[in-house]
Order: sequence, then structure tokens, then C-alpha cells
Amino acid sequence: MITGHMFIGQRALQGDAGSIRATNPATGEKLEPAFGLANESVVAEACALAAAAFDSYRETAPEARARFLETIADNIMALGSELIERAMLETGLPQARLEGERGRTCNQLRMFAQVVRDGHYLSATLDSALPNRVPPRPDLRLRRVAIGPVAVFGASNFPLAFSVAGGDTASALAAGCPVIVKAHSAHPGTSELVGRAVQKAVADCALPEGTFSMLFGGGNLIGQALVGHPAIKAVGFTGSRNGGVALMKTAAARKEPIPVYAEMSSINPVFLLPGAISGDVGAFAQAYVDSLTLGAGQFCTNPGLVLALAGPALDAFLQAAGASLNTRAAATMLSPGIHSAYNEGVAAYASVPGVQCVARGQSGSQACPAQAALFVTDVATYQANHALEAEVFGPAALVVKCKDEAEMLAFAEQLEGQLTATVHALPEDYALAARLVPILERKAGRILFNGFPTGVEVCHAMVHGGPYPSTSDGRSTSVGAQAIERFLRSVCYQNFPGSLLPAAIADGNPLKLVRLQDGKLQAAD
Amino acid sequence: MITGHMFIGQRALQGDAGSIRATNPATGEKLEPAFGLANESVVAEACALAAAAFDSYRETAPEARARFLETIADNIMALGSELIERAMLETGLPQARLEGERGRTCNQLRMFAQVVRDGHYLSATLDSALPNRVPPRPDLRLRRVAIGPVAVFGASNFPLAFSVAGGDTASALAAGCPVIVKAHSAHPGTSELVGRAVQKAVADCALPEGTFSMLFGGGNLIGQALVGHPAIKAVGFTGSRNGGVALMKTAAARKEPIPVYAEMSSINPVFLLPGAISGDVGAFAQAYVDSLTLGAGQFCTNPGLVLALAGPALDAFLQAAGASLNTRAAATMLSPGIHSAYNEGVAAYASVPGVQCVARGQSGSQACPAQAALFVTDVATYQANHALEAEVFGPAALVVKCKDEAEMLAFAEQLEGQLTATVHALPEDYALAARLVPILERKAGRILFNGFPTGVEVCHAMVHGGPYPSTSDGRSTSVGAQAIERFLRSVCYQNFPGSLLPAAIADGNPLKLVRLQDGKLQAAD
Repeated sequence: MITGHMFIGQRALQGDAGSIRATNPATGEKLEPAFGLANESVVAEACALAAAAFDSYRETAPEARARFLETIADNIMALGSELIERAMLETGLPQARLEGERGRTCNQLRMFAQVVRDGHYLSATLDSALPNRVPPRPDLRLRRVAIGPVAVFGASNFPLAFSVAGGDTASALAAGCPVIVKAHSAHPGTSELVGRAVQKAVADCALPEGTFSMLFGGGNLIGQALVGHPAIKAVGFTGSRNGGVALMKTAAARKEPIPVYAEMSSINPVFLLPGAISGDVGAFAQAYVDSLTLGAGQFCTNPGLVLALAGPALDAFLQAAGASLNTRAAATMLSPGIHSAYNEGVAAYASVPGVQCVARGQSGSQACPAQAALFVTDVATYQANHALEAEVFGPAALVVKCKDEAEMLAFAEQLEGQLTATVHALPEDYALAARLVPILERKAGRILFNGFPTGVEVCHAMVHGGPYPSTSDGRSTSVGAQAIERFLRSVCYQNFPGSLLPAAIADGNPLKLVRLQDGKLQAAD
Repeated sequence: MITGHMFIGQRALQGDAGSIRATNPATGEKLEPAFGLANESVVAEACALAAAAFDSYRETAPEARARFLETIADNIMALGSELIERAMLETGLPQARLEGERGRTCNQLRMFAQVVRDGHYLSATLDSALPNRVPPRPDLRLRRVAIGPVAVFGASNFPLAFSVAGGDTASALAAGCPVIVKAHSAHPGTSELVGRAVQKAVADCALPEGTFSMLFGGGNLIGQALVGHPAIKAVGFTGSRNGGVALMKTAAARKEPIPVYAEMSSINPVFLLPGAISGDVGAFAQAYVDSLTLGAGQFCTNPGLVLALAGPALDAFLQAAGASLNTRAAATMLSPGIHSAYNEGVAAYASVPGVQCVARGQSGSQACPAQAALFVTDVATYQANHALEAEVFGPAALVVKCKDEAEMLAFAEQLEGQLTATVHALPEDYALAARLVPILERKAGRILFNGFPTGVEVCHAMVHGGPYPSTSDGRSTSVGAQAIERFLRSVCYQNFPGSLLPAAIADGNPLKLVRLQDGKLQAAD
């Protein structure tokens, strides 16, 4: 049952600083109930609870913390169809997609449970005392500790996987950090349901109540108050560049600046090397349009920019892609705001002299239809019009024709930071690819061959993060096991009495970790 | 031979934007020769060379990069007594200290050579393709890559170990990053000698010339130009809080913000628990004063703040420490600027009502004598006078009397971020220590028992870094093997053709790394 409540520790309360309702983007209708918004004293209360919980929560035993993450997953699954139905109403996303996203969200929590059990993230490191050396070396041991309470901002485009119990929350909780979520205003009912599932998991596992809070806030004020609060030690965010940059500024202006992990924008360039489009391109063009229009193009990794050498092969690709795109129905976008921004972005592309529209998708009669769009231009036009570099969030792409390989490589050098870069190549293209890849390594967090970037696997080797402005911190990933590293710092323990040493670095290796002992990795046995 | 030259790649040139001379702090005399200062075009030239070198240097084979680091160490040792003699003249530090620091500097380079050979820093991670899963999982592999050219700012207090070829340079070069050093103006001759040794190592190892440059700059302009240059991707700095904060602001205001690793200030609190000062405190007080006055107190980890319970035991410690301090000769400080700042800091302590001077060390007749100072106050006075929290760089300490354990713990909660925190305790104190340590874990990068923080071991488990404002980035360390992690980012390779995969994550494990394969750490065999 959806009540309009926020969750501050184990309390459920109705905010009194105004209220919001969700909008059904397919119909434009407002959805019940109203969700009360937090004021600054609610933020302060959540922060005080998180700070009070921190020392206890961060020292939970690995098994206890892993079970907590698994209990969150169980509690989300126990919400059953109510969650999926509410998310469909609030986002316009179809049932199968949301059920898949729920599976991904729960698998992500379970993966982090395993990360906690494995304990590699603790970087347990021991250097033995050398009492007879001149000067003597003390006993030195290192482990990673949780950074502190984390503020998480849910994203609109993944109402489960990047929201209340999404990747930022899962990785911060796995690291030992209490989490305060500012729920996204576009799916408050979905957020309430998931927030209650997490709140219940805290109680189920007898953890300190400040381990998790979730609040609603209007505009940016409450988010800024949260990021500015002294108890908060790091921020996870997925959303627009403007939103991310505003949080970076707030975090940098604090008395104690804190890290912000903002995943902001990316146009995900796709390089079509000559061999890859030399034959029959029909199936390939269709696969590209599938990726471009997946989820109404509302993916951080949507392939919005295509580079290829001008010529008959590219013309054939454009014709096939345009023919495929032309048949695509308009899916419902996430919100009226995203829909109007998309239309503005498409109109901006179309208004640039030297940019041609190759094809449009079908229009739609619902409230927020995403009419796909494919444009083509050349490098000179692209570089003369800085606006073309901006992400258009939705199923729109721009194909840029390069005169020759040198122009393609030079174009790659000029790219901003990206989440992904993709190369389509046959073996005959590998010499060119070998010149392109080192450039792309400097520009993107993930480089793909002969695939499309819209699938982001949750695994150990995933990097969903890239140089600025794709993220605020290009050293990090927000998906995959390494996401936990964002919320950790190293502490060294010198000549500690055995009884006061943390288990991760205690004598006898009670946690059975792989540890770096005097420079050598050693298993527990 | 010292010529006054900078090193831009393999060129040696005399800057023409003014000049500086070093000052002998013991005599106040100016030293020959003059060192020409860089203008912005020299900065741009060094940056262009570094950018051009990057893709090649970062892909050097582990053995080649390790030998380069060892060659730097060899070339520094080959400078012989000329280096030590010049450093003595420029810093006032004694021969034995500088010879020890040279050993530490070379050992640090050799340790990073071993880190490069071991390859753990690459975080090689492989997740196998699962072609039959629905949806199929692609082949995903992750390695860490160098972040890009790094700007390093030498510190005045360690003219070798934290300067031209110090920890920042060694760890950045180990990571695969070209380095541009802005040499510290207090020891330009020492910098030139070491810079030439590094430049020669680049040639000895046939590396691209842009791998290393070193320049002199007056004031802050050249440093700001360097940090603002688009080719620079990270910054290493050791120095004052003002200097570090200025670089953080410049880095954050860039079109592409970059990480700044600034090690800035710390007062390194020492907690004397009751048992530790319950007996004869003579030897202990002397050991404390040894640490306080080591190197004229010019250590980042100088123990400048002491907390203890008020009472006869503390009075006895104060009396013994005062008696010991009173006999200490005044060592020469590093520069006239540091000397006058020290005297101002001591005068500021002395001027606070409620702060008593316990003892002063001997005065000195040289130009920049560091007259040690020991003050005592209580918690209320400390907390009412924010100025007492500022680092006084030099051999001055403030002892703060706590009424009871609760006041001591509350005081610890109020501390700013620190490089180190120290606990002196006997087993009878462990119950109190167990309440103190979790607080200190949130405040400091290294926690010591029954020692003094002035020795910073170069090893795998060291953390020389702590929460702001001790450093700009509390997730990092600037000493020890983990320092390399500051200059790396992760890249994921999806479905790469075998011939284009980097060796670290190639089939067959040609680099013989320990790799995380499908979530399990696996050795090469």
C-alpha cells in the first residue's frame, strides 16, 4: 500500500513542506496519493541517525552485512506485482522491462553480498615488524574502511536499478556506509515501496535504524541541504549534467569537501570501420536501431553518435538504418520534462545548417511519445557547432561522415569523456582499430567490439564510468563490483595490540581473506 | 655541475621570466647560480611533450618501466656528494639526515619498480562470456590504465623524498603517467641535480622525452598554469593548506576538472591514556620530545597536539618533557619564510589567555633557528580559540588537559582530519582505547600504538593521507605502494579481439599476473 510516507530510520512520516504527485507519462494524469516533502529538519534528523549508526553498521560481520543485502532483495521480490504495476504507471516503461530491471536490481544486491563475503575490497595488507633492522620497522597493517554516510540520488530512467535500492545504494551499503536516499520525484510510489522494503530489511536484520533513510524533496533545495550536511561523506548521483555539476559545486564548497560520484551524460560514439559495413548491412543496421530505440533511448549508454568513412558503404548503412527507424513505434518517455527536452534536442539538431535528417520514427498519440530520429552531417559541421556535442536524451542519433582515417582519428581525439565507445570492425580493420583504441582508452570507461553499449552487465569487470563530463570522477564505476571502492578509504594500523586489531587484519586471518603479506598475495590457508 | 637550467623533455634551457636564487637558511646568504624561471610557453611545451609521450610511455612493458625507475635511483646515487652538499646548503638539514633521505628516495623508486613487476595494481579482472545465458553475457575484461600526465609540486621539507623524484613522481611514473615537476624554489640546485638524473634515465632507457620535465616558476602563476593545462590529468602536491586549496580550486574550475592529491596539514594528535603515563615518565617524555624536535619539527607527521587526563601523572609528564625540551639546541629551519611563520605560530599560541608556556628550547644564533616550544591548556580554552587548531609547522606542541574520559572522547570527535593519530596505552587502558579507536579511524589515515608518528615507512601497508584538511582526498595515500592508485583509472574491454587485448588481460596471462577470473583470484599457474 502506498501512503505518501518518507522513511527516516524506522519512522514513516508524511512530509509537511509541500507535496508532489507522480504523473502517468502515457496519459498525463496525476496519480494518487500525494507525497509529503521533507524540510531541512527532516534532513538533519536522517543525517543524525546515519551518523549514529555508522560506527556500528560499518563493523557488522561480513555474513551479517551480506545477509542484509540479500534480505533487501528478498523484500523487494516480496512486493510482487504491486511494485511492477506502480512503476509502469509512473514511468511508462513496459512490464517485461521492469521485471527484468527488478531482477537486475536484486542480482546486484546479491552480487554485492558475495563481494562482502569475499572481502577482496578490504585490501587487507600486512607488513611484518622488522625489529632488528636499523631503524626498526614497526608492524604495519592496512584495511579499507567505509567512508561514512552516503547521500544517494535516484535516477528517473532506471526506477529500480539506479534508484532507491539501486547500484549506488547497494555498493554503499556493501562498503559499510549508511545511506540516505533522496527519491526521484518522477516515481515516488515506486520509491516508497522499495524504501519500505529496505527499511524492513534493516529491522529484519536488527541493524541500527540510521542505516537507511529515504526522503522526498521538491526542487533542488533538499538535495543541496543533504549534500551540504556535515554528516554526509560521499554522494552518488545519476542524472543530468546540470544536476551533477550543481552537486559537485556544493560538495566542493563545504568546509570539508567530499567526493561526488555523478554519472551525468554520454553520447557513446560508435565507430564503423570500413570492413564492418562493407557487406549486406541490413541486419546490422537493424541491430543498431534496436539499441538506439531500446527503452525509448533513455539509457546512459545510448549510442547517439556514429562515425564512419564517407562513401557508398556508409550510404547503404544510412539507408538501411533509416528504413528500419522509420517503422519504429513511438514509445512513451519517462516524464513530460524528458519528453519536451528530447523534442528540443531533436529540433536543435535539425536546425543546424549542414545537418540532414535521414529518417524519423513513427509519431505517437500518447502524452509523451518518443519519435526516433536519425541525422547525418560531416566533421566540419560537427566541429563548427558545439551544440551537436550535447547529449540528446532519447532515441536520436547523429551520424558523422569522415573524409578519411586521419579525420576519424582526429575526431576521436576531440571527443569529450564518455561512458562507452564502440568499434565495429572485421579483421581487415584491426590495423586502424589498433590506432583508434589507445585514443578511446583515454576517452571512455568501456570499449566494445562489434556490439552495442546499451547492455551494462553487473559483474566484476564492468566499468560504468568514464572521464569528465560522462562522470564527475573518471576513476570510478557506478556498476559492477568495483563500485564499492567509491565508498572506502584506507587506514593503517601501526603496532596495534592484537585485541584491538580489526578482524580483517588480525593474526590468524579469522575472516579467511586473501591478504597481501609482505608484498605477496596469500590465501587463507 | 649546477647551471640554473630547467629540463623540458631532453632539452636543458635557461628560463627567461625572471630568476631566483636559493638562500642558505643557516647564514641568510644567497647561493649561486641564478635559476631562470619558466613562462607559460615553456609550460605549454612541457605539456605537449608529456601528452605526446603518454600513449607510448603508459604501454611500456613492466620490466622496462621497472628498470626506468631503478635507473633513476642509480643516477641519483651517481650524483654522489655533490647532491648532499648542495641540499645541505639549501635546506640547513644535516648530512646524515639527507643521506638517509636519499636512501629512502631510492628505496621508494625501487619499491615501485617491484610494484610494477608484481602488477597487482593493474587489477586485472576477467569475466567469461556466457553465450548460452539469456541474454548472453559478453566477454568482459578490466585493467587499470594510467590517468594521464601528472603535475607534481615538490615540497620544501623533504628536498629529496617529496620533491623532484619523490613519492608523487615515483608513483605517477610507476602508474605509467608522464610527470612535469614544478621544482620548489627553496632548493633549486638540489632540484636541478635530481632533475638531470631523471632526464638522463629517460634517455638511458630510450623512453619518449616527454616522460619527464622539470621547471622553475616564481610565485603561483606557473603552478596554476600547469594545473590548468588541458594535458594535465592529475596533480600531486605536498605543502601548505593555502597552497593545496588554491590548486584544488584551479583544478575544479577547469573545463575538465581533475583530481588533486594535496597533502596539506596535520597536527597529529597523541592520546596519552592513564596507564601510559602512570609510572616513571622520564624516558617516555624524552622520546616524545625527540619526535617533536626531529628535523626541526618540520615533518607533516610532527606530533603537535597531546591529549591526556588532567592530574599528577600528566603534570609529571609535562615537567619531564619541559625539562627535556629546555635542553634542545635550535636546529636551522628550511627557509626564512618557514622560520618567520613558525615564530608567528608560537607567538599566537602564547597570546591566547588560558594557554601556558611549559618550556622553550634553546635559542640559536644562526639565521633561522627553531626554538622549540611546549604549551599547555584545557579543552574549554582550546575549543574557544579556533586558532589553536592550526598547524604550527616546526617543533611546537600544545598539550590539552581533559577533565575525564568523556571529555577526551568528545574532543576526539571534534578533531579535523589528520594524517596520523597516536595512542599510548597499557593493557589496563584498552577498554578506553577501544572507544577511542573507532573515532580515530574516522579522523586519521594512520593510527599508532605506543610510538611516534614522525617515521613514515615506505611499504605496502602505509597510509600517508587522511580526511580533509590533512589531504584534499582522504581516499588516498601519498606514501607506500597504494600511492600508485591515485594515478589510475579502470577501463573495461568488451568482446575484444585477442590480438587487440592488452597483455595484462590477454588469454594465457602473458604477464603472469594474479587475476580475478570470474570472481576468484587466480595465480598465473
